Amino acid sequence: MTSYAYLGPRGTFAETALRLLPAADGCEHVAFASVGLALAAVRRGEVAGALVPIENSIEGSVPSTLDDLASGDQLQIIDEVTIPVRFALIARPGTELASVKTVATHPHAEAQTRGWLYGFLPGVTLLPALSTAAAVQRLAEEPQPYDAAVAAPLAAELYGMQVLVEGIADNDDASTRFVLVSNPGPLPSPTGADKTTLFLYIREDHPGALLEILTEFAVRGVNLTRIESRPTKRALGDYYFSVDVEGHVADERVGEALMGLQRVCADIRFLGSYARHDGKNSHVRIGTSDENFRAAREWLGQIRQDG
Amino acid sequence: MTSYAYLGPRGTFAETALRLLPAADGCEHVAFASVGLALAAVRRGEVAGALVPIENSIEGSVPSTLDDLASGDQLQIIDEVTIPVRFALIARPGTELASVKTVATHPHAEAQTRGWLYGFLPGVTLLPALSTAAAVQRLAEEPQPYDAAVAAPLAAELYGMQVLVEGIADNDDASTRFVLVSNPGPLPSPTGADKTTLFLYIREDHPGALLEILTEFAVRGVNLTRIESRPTKRALGDYYFSVDVEGHVADERVGEALMGLQRVCADIRFLGSYARHDGKNSHVRIGTSDENFRAAREWLGQIRQDG
Amino acid sequence: MTSYAYLGPRGTFAETALRLLPAADGCEHVAFASVGLALAAVRRGEVAGALVPIENSIEGSVPSTLDDLASGDQLQIIDEVTIPVRFALIARPGTELASVKTVATHPHAEAQTRGWLYGFLPGVTLLPALSTAAAVQRLAEEPQPYDAAVAAPLAAELYGMQVLVEGIADNDDASTRFVLVSNPGPLPSPTGADKTTLFLYIREDHPGALLEILTEFAVRGVNLTRIESRPTKRALGDYYFSVDVEGHVADERVGEALMGLQRVCADIRFLGSYARHDGKNSHVRIGTSDENFRAAREWLGQIRQDG
Amino acid sequence: MTSYAYLGPRGTFAETALRLLPAADGCEHVAFASVGLALAAVRRGEVAGALVPIENSIEGSVPSTLDDLASGDQLQIIDEVTIPVRFALIARPGTELASVKTVATHPHAEAQTRGWLYGFLPGVTLLPALSTAAAVQRLAEEPQPYDAAVAAPLAAELYGMQVLVEGIADNDDASTRFVLVSNPGPLPSPTGADKTTLFLYIREDHPGALLEILTEFAVRGVNLTRIESRPTKRALGDYYFSVDVEGHVADERVGEALMGLQRVCADIRFLGSYARHDGKNSHVRIGTSDENFRAAREWLGQIRQDG
Repeated sequence: MTSYAYLGPRGTFAETALRLLPAADGCEHVAFASVGLALAAVRRGEVAGALVPIENSIEGSVPSTLDDLASGDQLQIIDEVTIPVRFALIARPGTELASVKTVATHPHAEAQTRGWLYGFLPGVTLLPALSTAAAVQRLAEEPQPYDAAVAAPLAAELYGMQVLVEGIADNDDASTRFVLVSNPGPLPSPTGADKTTLFLYIREDHPGALLEILTEFAVRGVNLTRIESRPTKRALGDYYFSVDVEGHVADERVGEALMGLQRVCADIRFLGSYARHDGKNSHVRIGTSDENFRAAREWLGQIRQDG
Repeated sequence: MTSYAYLGPRGTFAETALRLLPAADGCEHVAFASVGLALAAVRRGEVAGALVPIENSIEGSVPSTLDDLASGDQLQIIDEVTIPVRFALIARPGTELASVKTVATHPHAEAQTRGWLYGFLPGVTLLPALSTAAAVQRLAEEPQPYDAAVAAPLAAELYGMQVLVEGIADNDDASTRFVLVSNPGPLPSPTGADKTTLFLYIREDHPGALLEILTEFAVRGVNLTRIESRPTKRALGDYYFSVDVEGHVADERVGEALMGLQRVCADIRFLGSYARHDGKNSHVRIGTSDENFRAAREWLGQIRQDG
Repeated sequence: MTSYAYLGPRGTFAETALRLLPAADGCEHVAFASVGLALAAVRRGEVAGALVPIENSIEGSVPSTLDDLASGDQLQIIDEVTIPVRFALIARPGTELASVKTVATHPHAEAQTRGWLYGFLPGVTLLPALSTAAAVQRLAEEPQPYDAAVAAPLAAELYGMQVLVEGIADNDDASTRFVLVSNPGPLPSPTGADKTTLFLYIREDHPGALLEILTEFAVRGVNLTRIESRPTKRALGDYYFSVDVEGHVADERVGEALMGLQRVCADIRFLGSYARHDGKNSHVRIGTSDENFRAAREWLGQIRQDG
Repeated sequence: MTSYAYLGPRGTFAETALRLLPAADGCEHVAFASVGLALAAVRRGEVAGALVPIENSIEGSVPSTLDDLASGDQLQIIDEVTIPVRFALIARPGTELASVKTVATHPHAEAQTRGWLYGFLPGVTLLPALSTAAAVQRLAEEPQPYDAAVAAPLAAELYGMQVLVEGIADNDDASTRFVLVSNPGPLPSPTGADKTTLFLYIREDHPGALLEILTEFAVRGVNLTRIESRPTKRALGDYYFSVDVEGHVADERVGEALMGLQRVCADIRFLGSYARHDGKNSHVRIGTSDENFRAAREWLGQIRQDG
């Protein structure tokens, strides 16, 4: 049976997201303790793919996911899904809100609910957990490790716990983007509303390198939707850039931009082209449609032949 | 007595770094449980400044520090210090390496020592802690919460614990940059080897906005040494940019670039100009020295007056 | 009595244009044999100004005018006027069109009427003259130097000749732009619909120099209305650029752009800021108004003082 | 017998240049009264090619040549040659220098010798001629049209006249570039030291259009060696750009730049790729060799196929 990995344990937002993916429908869902372990399972061929968080509207990109994708054998993003992040305060059945003195959760969840926690539970002590779901699981399995946990409502349900308060995120519109990662293979077909993910390594740390890279995109009318600088782990100030752009590598303008980057960069890792979760069509600037590129190529061919 | 805040508890790398700062010499060093709490103490005027981590050569920028500086009352960076990150495996005196089955540490330290831990301690269980020093402290104060902790050697010394193995970082050259943050006030004098930190908010999410920003710097010959995109916490894909550039706001080229950005950006937060930890002089491109700017201004003045 | 120079002899388009200039109203109008001689008279202080052709919609810029302005003592453009160019075929009274076999005119006029001349006077012989008016003058003064001349209708009137055919220009919309040149002095006040003329010398013949120059304008939102490359007369491929831009040097955005160019260029000659003949207001891109520049300068001043 | 056209009459610099062209060796050389007539003969197939002046180190580009190439049926530049311009003062045998009161020549030659003429022949009257050689021819054929002519020494020899003074140009290093123009056909093979000539029409008169065009070249590392703005003859301020760039259209970087321009411009006219007269190899920026382009295309092909 085909199986898909996700960042576990059971009850995380990753599991919630995986349930929304058509590709994973009717397949086995396997929890892994870290993004790195989930991706390793993909690379070993134990699972067909892994759904991993890549970006959060509050916390920004998930650095460890980017770094795990940037190093090791090449992988490929074939789909994405975005879900709203709704945190709940969860406790053992029968717990009173007033008696909550210690709360455990993952640091990212803590960062997104800190305002509420300090506001409504003055004097509360916050404890770290490996994941939001793990915090709930330990609440269920150990006598009294702490009074409550912050996690997705799904976790309460799975572990027989009780939701004390729902919607405690400081920012109601928080959402997390997950990408479905597989081994390299045939690309998803272009849909007209696609995204392409790349990791770009500057040839040398020369001022203006980023300007050069952005110009390669701009000249071909390719829009960026995300750009992150990440350290290469060699020295402070030595970066690579992780970018998402509108369009599919099969699009002429994206293809030419990628060739330009391949010539300009020290290294470039192609992470895939895939349908956008929001279905928004790529903006096509005048003169940059596939038809424009084909006409230009034909014109050049004639000139080269006949003057 | 003047006091300075740092990310505690006692024994963290932040404390190690604070001891290197001339400004804090002979002052009281006060530990805080989070960067946010340390900065709040600065804002309330309880401490003269706070030394907080802003960038790590392995993990990249420290998002929570950036976000705490970006929101709330304006603060100012007045100095920086960079220290090598040397991790040690620390246990109660008398512990044998072979008996270590559970290890606690902060997730960032775990990320930087994971290779060593899984390689030399197969089957080890890793537990999260609020800081590396907190992991050592709990080891000292509770009966047997876990077998060992990963932290700075200083923590072993402070809490009476034993260093089992030194230098267990997967990457020997790792280093962390800390910045000293105070309330806004007179700027440190330019030294010729300065850095300026800014937070830039795009006017609207239009393609090419980042290209525009970089061009404002490039035209005046101002080099970037760090650029980070961070979510504004409003929606996925809505960013602000945190940048460090070479030079002091008192430098003509930096001043004109900042005025250009102020006109182009929706908002801009100036975080300070301060001496670089590495003492490297700013690169001054031909035509961009203070003298060049003054000569140009004088020339313009004459033209405006006499044609 | 104040006098103004123009490119003579009497009856040229330059004289037609000079009559339209308010500044020259009621003053003496003095004809000179060349643009160079007219400008020399300005430099010697013999005339208050000279009206010289700088650009023609058919022929392009007038290279000799540009070169005469670029070399020698600095001069200043203080006004401009544009007139439609209406050519007529002019002969001695009583001449039949059918008998016209030889026609004299200035080479520029010939270029603009060639189609008509060869079409309606097959087999005609064309002869060069020093100016269109000179061709009519010689027709009037010598026995039979040629059968007809191409010139402005005004010339026929002044020399007692007859217009055989009016409106013989191949392109009906042709127009010529004249500029009024004086010695350097106080600039005309900004009107909101101004133009500034500059000569820019590249620091060295490096690829990308023109791109740099254009970027200095673009960053400050200054639009170009004309750009000409002209040889510096040193070697093939060694150019200077003559440009007109929207706006007055008193405008903040124009002033900052000029200071940038002064730092980037080997040399720069400011030829003046003056009201546009067409009264079109400068386009002011968002963030580039004088008010925006002042606000940015004030903001910078505060930062430099208080952090 | 194959024949080649040049700008006559006999004795012009154009004839001097044509004698240097290997392609025209042993062929008939036919003089034409204007560049337009010479090009018309090419278009009608009466001559194999025409050698026409395109650029002069003193006067700049030759506007009428550019305009004649820009309009009418497409033509192709297949070679170029540059010759030094050495002017002589030429008179009937036996003439004394002191007796020279009137001098005829072409306006361009006059512009380049004016300093000498006014300096050594004070009070001289200058008369226009259709070409330098025509001035000498008329001197030989008519009784006494004027006292002397300024032309190439070759003209004195051909018409039996005498060189009074040699080397009277105000600038010793003046040179003129001629191009050999034929009907469109197979391109000359790339030599590594080639030039490509283009006429570019802006899509609309939007500010920044020239910046866009230059960026298309810069991104592919293509250097410009000449750029001229020329009026389109529609209205003042409506331009097309005539540019020469380093490299051959068969070069990958030139080809991609041309395709980019074809997509960006309203219209583009390709005038040919041909060996440079000076034999200077094109500068090839890192990452822009043909090999770099081929490697990038192969890399893209693999990505598109296999992810």
